[in-house]
Amino acid sequence: MSRIAYVNGRYVPFAHASVHIEDRGYQLADGVYEACEILDGSLVDARRHLERLSRSLDALRISAPLAPAALRFVLDETVRRNRVRDGLLYLQVTRGVARRDHGFPDKPVKPALVVTVRALDRKKIEATAVAGIAVITVPDDRWGRVDIKTTGLLPNVLARQAARDAGAKDAWFVDDHGLITEGASSNAWIVKDGVLLTRPSSNRILTGITMTVVKEIAAGLQMKVEERAFTPEEVRSASEAFLTSATQTVIPVVSIDGYNIGSGKPGPLAIRLREAFHRTAEIGPKIA
Amino acid sequence: MSRIAYVNGRYVPFAHASVHIEDRGYQLADGVYEACEILDGSLVDARRHLERLSRSLDALRISAPLAPAALRFVLDETVRRNRVRDGLLYLQVTRGVARRDHGFPDKPVKPALVVTVRALDRKKIEATAVAGIAVITVPDDRWGRVDIKTTGLLPNVLARQAARDAGAKDAWFVDDHGLITEGASSNAWIVKDGVLLTRPSSNRILTGITMTVVKEIAAGLQMKVEERAFTPEEVRSASEAFLTSATQTVIPVVSIDGYNIGSGKPGPLAIRLREAFHRTAEIGPKIA
Repeated sequence: MSRIAYVNGRYVPFAHASVHIEDRGYQLADGVYEACEILDGSLVDARRHLERLSRSLDALRISAPLAPAALRFVLDETVRRNRVRDGLLYLQVTRGVARRDHGFPDKPVKPALVVTVRALDRKKIEATAVAGIAVITVPDDRWGRVDIKTTGLLPNVLARQAARDAGAKDAWFVDDHGLITEGASSNAWIVKDGVLLTRPSSNRILTGITMTVVKEIAAGLQMKVEERAFTPEEVRSASEAFLTSATQTVIPVVSIDGYNIGSGKPGPLAIRLREAFHRTAEIGPKIA
Repeated sequence: MSRIAYVNGRYVPFAHASVHIEDRGYQLADGVYEACEILDGSLVDARRHLERLSRSLDALRISAPLAPAALRFVLDETVRRNRVRDGLLYLQVTRGVARRDHGFPDKPVKPALVVTVRALDRKKIEATAVAGIAVITVPDDRWGRVDIKTTGLLPNVLARQAARDAGAKDAWFVDDHGLITEGASSNAWIVKDGVLLTRPSSNRILTGITMTVVKEIAAGLQMKVEERAFTPEEVRSASEAFLTSATQTVIPVVSIDGYNIGSGKPGPLAIRLREAFHRTAEIGPKIA
């Protein structure tokens, strides 16, 4: 079956899904996005993803492309038409098509909306979780508002590629104070003296939906969570480390910059949180 | 006559010029661009723009979309097909189309190339130059590599819009040290004690082609240029100020944050530099 994308009001064959060259997302990175897990035919934490989307749009003064119920219908319909039971929904909203100019269009244009769905190889992700991953650190030279989930991801692209070039799977950004902010597309966590540490929300990180849910899970499991930033040295001496993301949920991190973390194997708390994740996440109605 | 755009090997009607939704420029701002003035049917400083394009591509490890001579042919042909004698050529190169993933595509894909041309209203720009413009200052919260001319322009978009909201025409960024870096799409200059001041090249500014040419003009006119950063306070107390950009060449700045600069009218050095610009810029062969 061929893939279908939703693009500005139409469901089109993925291969022919296109946007105009003057879409401000293409010329100016003037847009935002969300990525939402599809588990067993249902969207995971969709409500929270759509709330965050609203916050991103408000921050950039982009109007909503559709009313909430209509948007939710489009997401479900895109999942349904692609018959994806385990995968990822991606949605992108840009300010729309207008003659190239830095300022917002004088006459407001209709925001552009693109929704795609693809299957994920859950076994492969599971194997990654079982093995754990290596990360490297890179200087955080991103702009000052990474709390807005914009498509301006080039620094993240370069960080991820630097990780690959070094034989690692992800890069964790380190700010000017020597503190880790987050991963290239994930939030960073360590376990120290039995306490889970992760950086508090601010304009220096993108507060992950999965991160938020994992905090709730940890509380439910009587684990102690402290929200504070930590250094790469603290990661090296941590008993365990992990990352959270909507695509991969919880993934143990077993080394940083070539140094083993703890035993150099996935830690027990990360494994428990991963196992518990889908019991706490908000699973939507069955679609596909 | 309808406009024509060059998109990935084809000349297409502008209204139908489109790129795939998984073009990495659209999803990840993984691309670069150039804008080049068209004067009386000729490209201005095209050679320097293409050299800078090569540097941008190299910095991101994106391969050239075409060999230099072929690229130059495409630029000329796009100008010719649009019959634009006074205007702007815009070209954008992205890493190409690939399944969304932060890292570079495992199998390299063909870079995407889009070229557009549009007419500019030279009388309107001239009127702007005669009147001078107001600018405001905004905090420079951009990423650390603005020396690469990437399409990740959202901070510039927001800065320009903030200027408009304040009734000004441009925004000048101020870094953490209280020093002006550059404008939202221009380089910033002041005149102090008869000396032209502009910030030296670094990864904190995009070294403008027009800026470089204006330095040469100034030297030719026996004006003294000092490359150093300056504060908003120095702008307020300067005898004159101006900006340089490929679209507008030299534009006098007559106020900053509501404070008049000098007499509050365009300064004599800015006017001389503007008049001299096209005598020094490298004008290509006549195309349109």
